[in-house]
Amino acid sequence: MSNHVYKKLELTGTSAASIEDAVNSALARAAKTVRDLRWFEVEEIRGDIEDGKVGHWQVSLKVGFKLDE
Amino acid sequence: MSNHVYKKLELTGTSAASIEDAVNSALARAAKTVRDLRWFEVEEIRGDIEDGKVGHWQVSLKVGFKLDE
Amino acid sequence: MSNHVYKKLELTGTSAASIEDAVNSALARAAKTVRDLRWFEVEEIRGDIEDGKVGHWQVSLKVGFKLDE
Amino acid sequence: MSNHVYKKLELTGTSAASIEDAVNSALARAAKTVRDLRWFEVEEIRGDIEDGKVGHWQVSLKVGFKLDE
Amino acid sequence: MSNHVYKKLELTGTSAASIEDAVNSALARAAKTVRDLRWFEVEEIRGDIEDGKVGHWQVSLKVGFKLDE
Amino acid sequence: MSNHVYKKLELTGTSAASIEDAVNSALARAAKTVRDLRWFEVEEIRGDIEDGKVGHWQVSLKVGFKLDE
Amino acid sequence: MSNHVYKKLELTGTSAASIEDAVNSALARAAKTVRDLRWFEVEEIRGDIEDGKVGHWQVSLKVGFKLDE
Amino acid sequence: MSNHVYKKLELTGTSAASIEDAVNSALARAAKTVRDLRWFEVEEIRGDIEDGKVGHWQVSLKVGFKLDE
Amino acid sequence: MSNHVYKKLELTGTSAASIEDAVNSALARAAKTVRDLRWFEVEEIRGDIEDGKVGHWQVSLKVGFKLDE
Amino acid sequence: MSNHVYKKLELTGTSAASIEDAVNSALARAAKTVRDLRWFEVEEIRGDIEDGKVGHWQVSLKVGFKLDE
Amino acid sequence: MSNHVYKKLELTGTSAASIEDAVNSALARAAKTVRDLRWFEVEEIRGDIEDGKVGHWQVSLKVGFKLDE
Amino acid sequence: MSNHVYKKLELTGTSAASIEDAVNSALARAAKTVRDLRWFEVEEIRGDIEDGKVGHWQVSLKVGFKLDE
Repeated sequence: MSNHVYKKLELTGTSAASIEDAVNSALARAAKTVRDLRWFEVEEIRGDIEDGKVGHWQVSLKVGFKLDE
Repeated sequence: MSNHVYKKLELTGTSAASIEDAVNSALARAAKTVRDLRWFEVEEIRGDIEDGKVGHWQVSLKVGFKLDE
Repeated sequence: MSNHVYKKLELTGTSAASIEDAVNSALARAAKTVRDLRWFEVEEIRGDIEDGKVGHWQVSLKVGFKLDE
Repeated sequence: MSNHVYKKLELTGTSAASIEDAVNSALARAAKTVRDLRWFEVEEIRGDIEDGKVGHWQVSLKVGFKLDE
Repeated sequence: MSNHVYKKLELTGTSAASIEDAVNSALARAAKTVRDLRWFEVEEIRGDIEDGKVGHWQVSLKVGFKLDE
Repeated sequence: MSNHVYKKLELTGTSAASIEDAVNSALARAAKTVRDLRWFEVEEIRGDIEDGKVGHWQVSLKVGFKLDE
Repeated sequence: MSNHVYKKLELTGTSAASIEDAVNSALARAAKTVRDLRWFEVEEIRGDIEDGKVGHWQVSLKVGFKLDE
Repeated sequence: MSNHVYKKLELTGTSAASIEDAVNSALARAAKTVRDLRWFEVEEIRGDIEDGKVGHWQVSLKVGFKLDE
Repeated sequence: MSNHVYKKLELTGTSAASIEDAVNSALARAAKTVRDLRWFEVEEIRGDIEDGKVGHWQVSLKVGFKLDE
Repeated sequence: MSNHVYKKLELTGTSAASIEDAVNSALARAAKTVRDLRWFEVEEIRGDIEDGKVGHWQVSLKVGFKLDE
Repeated sequence: MSNHVYKKLELTGTSAASIEDAVNSALARAAKTVRDLRWFEVEEIRGDIEDGKVGHWQVSLKVGFKLDE
Repeated sequence: MSNHVYKKLELTGTSAASIEDAVNSALARAAKTVRDLRWFEVEEIRGDIEDGKVGHWQVSLKVGFKLDE
């Protein structure tokens, strides 16, 4: 039986709403072109500031998916 | 007066809902067997992916509690 | 044309509600005395525990703002 | 459905043979007292030296297991 | 003479046999679609546990290859 | 001959006197319930402030001990 | 309005001249195949040595670009 | 009830005597101009050397204090 | 003789020309309001991209200066 | 009784065979010129790639030995 | 005028008494064979445990000295 | 065929001119006493400040060279 191999992409999702929404926005975009997404790892949480409040959450994450054999 | 000593456990809480809920789920479980929980430190945020969305948030945290003297 | 220079402050915002709210609470306080806030970077997420649940989220962040020329 | 919670132990396995054997030696010991071991993360690889060769590999790892609900 | 430019991919190779085999399994997969692989850097060693033993080694690595000019 | 396995606990010792005393206070507490303590690794040094002076040193350390075979 | 998503590539640019030139050499190569490059983050600076002097600067950087929606 | 916000300063205290004294020397200076100092985190311990002995301990620390509301 | 105490500011200097120029631009701005600047530590090198080239180098640094006694 | 002092060297051992062999190759070379080698710490695992397989493992390690008194 | 160049050694000093004493013990040993010691940087603080107390502090430090021109 | 072994030195080069010049100044010094220098890795960039400008760049680097067999 062959061993599985996975690839990790690094994406930055953004959202005005929340950290969770920024992650899901990155995953939704990845799912358009990549099959078999499996897991993610949050690497960095930052954002821009508008009028003394968070403007957009900018969450960088690694996204792992299974490569075809 | 004796010095206090604290112990840290490392737990991973999970939740389909949010990062905050995953942390509270770990704390609720710890509170069943440990008295005197004091603080936590988030170590890692990751998760699995289902249908191009976050399936479960997996949040690893250290939980500090006071040891009996 | 002169080069821009930015300064970073390190703040810890707290909130009983959520990580996002703790960040906004720090930004709101910074906006009272600093003009031209631009971006933030989350450094650390921790908190205290009350009755086996998160009491307050304590989120440390760096906040960048533009210095006058 | 309740959320799962996992606990991580930190162990150091040793072996005169190999890094892999040192990890398995730590897992075998953990399996004696803990049910439902799930995953491990290698934290550090070091060792002592005897006669100009590796004496024992000392591999520190975190071991995750599922807590009962 | 133009300067060379390299790209790094991040892959996770798995193997039931050894850390070395997990790395080679990732490299073999990369070699199917990428020419001019040059070097790798191990980023993380972890794995799953089956019956109190390592089930699969999961080794994350960066793989560098030369881009066409 | 079987391989030795060690476990690491993470403790935070406190002391109004010194960093060294905070470490010894954590070790003394661990020695009450754990046999065969072998080594420690200082992870973090922090403290609280009273009247513009260190109130208590809070030193987090990992403590390694040998598991029974 | 949908949230923007960015992807980060990791590249290593080289140059016999300077660190700045090695970065620009990586960016020039990326610009041949990727539209909408936005920012970069220097990850590592190293190089080879020829005749007791820097032969080539080897600068690894992450390059962020906006994904189409 | 409003959320508390804290600010962290980064200071380097020095002392010919000890690490503890270097920290206290930084705190004493901070207390001259800042009210409501709460906690500190040691970031770095270094020093200069005179006649083959430590000349001055140089201890960098972050100092947290509560901002007025 | 009293012990010296230093404070560190975190600044981000920018320049279209070079990393060195971005650092000097931050130092020049700091020198307008702070006396007795002593040393700096580069924390991060990044930048924006314009037309497939570095637009501005953005160099974050800590700047240490001596506090009055 | 005087206190012992140890020195650490940083070496990179290579091997076509395995990580373990690369470490032993570095230790064997160190043992030719240094007495009283005591322990090692693996710092980095990388390698070159030949024909889509690991060419040589390159393992950087710190090697500690006791200095004469 | 030529530029100065410094070399850093990594040493581990030990002491039954204190962290400060372990550092001075490493510096005293270095001063026997190296002229022009300038500064040190503490890298790691650990130790062995005897009878539930610190046996010896083991402090790893980098020691910088000026090379002859 | 025997495996190659490399040693890494840690040096700090200085220069009033640039980061690149500080690195080359360290390499030139190393080349006086060491044959077969192969590669370097920049570890830290800092410097002193004179009259509100960089006085000297201080660049710490590891320098790898091949050991005789």
